[in-house]
Amino acid sequence: MSGGGLRRESPNEEWKLREKPRESDAAAVRSIVESTGFFHPYEVDVAEELIVERLRKGPSSGYHFVFAMLDGETIGYACHGPIACTQCSHDLYWLAVASPQQGKGLGRRLLGETERRIATMGGRRVYVETSGRPQYAATRTFYERCGYRLEATLDDFYAPGDSKCVYVRVVDAGWAQAKQ
Amino acid sequence: MSGGGLRRESPNEEWKLREKPRESDAAAVRSIVESTGFFHPYEVDVAEELIVERLRKGPSSGYHFVFAMLDGETIGYACHGPIACTQCSHDLYWLAVASPQQGKGLGRRLLGETERRIATMGGRRVYVETSGRPQYAATRTFYERCGYRLEATLDDFYAPGDSKCVYVRVVDAGWAQAKQ
Repeated sequence: MSGGGLRRESPNEEWKLREKPRESDAAAVRSIVESTGFFHPYEVDVAEELIVERLRKGPSSGYHFVFAMLDGETIGYACHGPIACTQCSHDLYWLAVASPQQGKGLGRRLLGETERRIATMGGRRVYVETSGRPQYAATRTFYERCGYRLEATLDDFYAPGDSKCVYVRVVDAGWAQAKQ
Repeated sequence: MSGGGLRRESPNEEWKLREKPRESDAAAVRSIVESTGFFHPYEVDVAEELIVERLRKGPSSGYHFVFAMLDGETIGYACHGPIACTQCSHDLYWLAVASPQQGKGLGRRLLGETERRIATMGGRRVYVETSGRPQYAATRTFYERCGYRLEATLDDFYAPGDSKCVYVRVVDAGWAQAKQ
């Protein structure tokens, strides 16, 4: 990844990534998202709905996941999917790391793996939407340092004074192999 | 509506608008959207899926409709809904008029009624997404003349060379009564 000024962390050998969802992931997702203290209760509900939908419908749900495990426990995850009626655009719906595991580079690892899987699926553009509010400054900086470009800002989208920032990163077919 | 240079049409007294979906609307929606000759088959499928979802789940589907009738036949419709995790933003998902009924002001009538209903539901921002391709020029001009402002353009969103244009119009509580 073109991490620019991003601090280089040595990858944690103990993290195991997996794609296949398990029944227990509904509770795991809720626990991870809640632990961040960052999301409204209705946002936590939406996060859980996506994994429940995936467990119910399988890949045809349009929701795909990467889970990070440490010592048998699920400690972070990403959720992405192709955007309907587009040829090769994908949304990154969620990226969250359990509070005690933050600051160790796991978010970046999950993001890189998600981009690789999107490229493998034929995706070429990864979109991330986040808030323009001050408390999301670290989130925006994270994506900018991971190679994402702010493409649009929709004023007052989430609420008056709370804009939506749309970031994009272009990935290519070579990533399917190269980004492992 | 602040129609600017929009041609003033006298409202057609024979159009009847209704909100409540019927079982027959799945076929009606497909027929209307297909008749325009404007959409890919997979887009027609998506249009039908939204009304099927609404018929199955009711208002909790998040999809709301305005149908236009003429002589007992459904000849146009709009589909809108609140955007999850926003306070008062709504998406206009679909607005389509059967081919033989176009050019008579029904699209504008359906749009005005949809905006009034969104305002009644507490919505304050109406978002419309459309393509930047040349064949969508008339669509973009329609929304611009109906008071919509281009807020963002996402390059290559739908496909390489096919951008997404995001339009927005702000509505207010007064519209709930005034725009009938």
